[in-house]
Amino acid sequence: MEQLKERIRREGKVLPGNIIKIDGFLNHRVDMKLLSDIADEFAKHFDISKVTMILTAEASGIALASMCAYKYGVPMIFAKKAKSDNIESGLIQSEIFSYTYKKRVTLLVSQEWLGPDERVLIIDDFMANGMAVGGLVDIVKKAGAELVGIGIAVEKGFQGGGDKFRAMEDIPYKALAVIEKADQNGIIFREEND
Amino acid sequence: MEQLKERIRREGKVLPGNIIKIDGFLNHRVDMKLLSDIADEFAKHFDISKVTMILTAEASGIALASMCAYKYGVPMIFAKKAKSDNIESGLIQSEIFSYTYKKRVTLLVSQEWLGPDERVLIIDDFMANGMAVGGLVDIVKKAGAELVGIGIAVEKGFQGGGDKFRAMEDIPYKALAVIEKADQNGIIFREEND
Repeated sequence: MEQLKERIRREGKVLPGNIIKIDGFLNHRVDMKLLSDIADEFAKHFDISKVTMILTAEASGIALASMCAYKYGVPMIFAKKAKSDNIESGLIQSEIFSYTYKKRVTLLVSQEWLGPDERVLIIDDFMANGMAVGGLVDIVKKAGAELVGIGIAVEKGFQGGGDKFRAMEDIPYKALAVIEKADQNGIIFREEND
Repeated sequence: MEQLKERIRREGKVLPGNIIKIDGFLNHRVDMKLLSDIADEFAKHFDISKVTMILTAEASGIALASMCAYKYGVPMIFAKKAKSDNIESGLIQSEIFSYTYKKRVTLLVSQEWLGPDERVLIIDDFMANGMAVGGLVDIVKKAGAELVGIGIAVEKGFQGGGDKFRAMEDIPYKALAVIEKADQNGIIFREEND
């Protein structure tokens, strides 16, 4: 998606340790018009008419998932992140390692909101190693629901998370901007056939 | 806002300890059409043409704040919650006590995204004691920005948070559904002159 790549080139900052900061339009200060265009772009890659709900993980995925849900006319459900191991009843859980928190985190979705009849599109703003999205896929499987696809706005291609999902041929996966390399010389995107 | 009150009456559950669960349409599984109508309702109560950004706190306020920002054509910024006392540079901070986490939490917004020229509308989905919104007001003041108003979807009126803000005559405050009493007999809303 050229518009997204252009924003990343223009406004993204590369910090030491391959950290790419694009919080001025995607993560912290959020440009909703851009998110609306991203939602329209996802609609070209997935069979939206099949989708009954959008699933994401708190917190930064919520804005984009909300916009997708609004445009597609379906509810948005977000998995909560619990830092404790408290087991409550009625919850579908998946334990992941969070690089943000540097510890194990449990993703939680109430069984009440994700049953076996749902056809789920997973949406997230950012993918690095794919741990969070992996947890969401696990939750969809545990619920016995159908996974329609995985849509990611920005993928750090060099961290391998996206390629893991591309290798799963039964799950449509689409990242709209795949960063192949990022350093002080700039940001290089992976060439793709859309 | 009658539509919102009707949803709360129909789908809300009152748990022991005056906990009101409305996560089926507002908090966890989110009905974006309802949030879109709530955004339209706020536009009747605030001077939206003045507003340059929407501010909320992660995580559950993000969906509603996103919808407001989208409809009003301004960016949405969310304050992050840090559970540590790590002081980073370039951040505007406010320390609050979180009843969710049962501990002190620091709300953080980058100075880069909230400067003195901004005219801020604070939006949140839920108010109980008003600690989170109080922290956001504090952040707006520390930034030297102008607070245009505070819009809340559902207020637990009996917990006093909203009345604290109503007493500040210089800040327009609006909650669209104020719950006066909630117990096993049902949910009673405060009568209001709109």
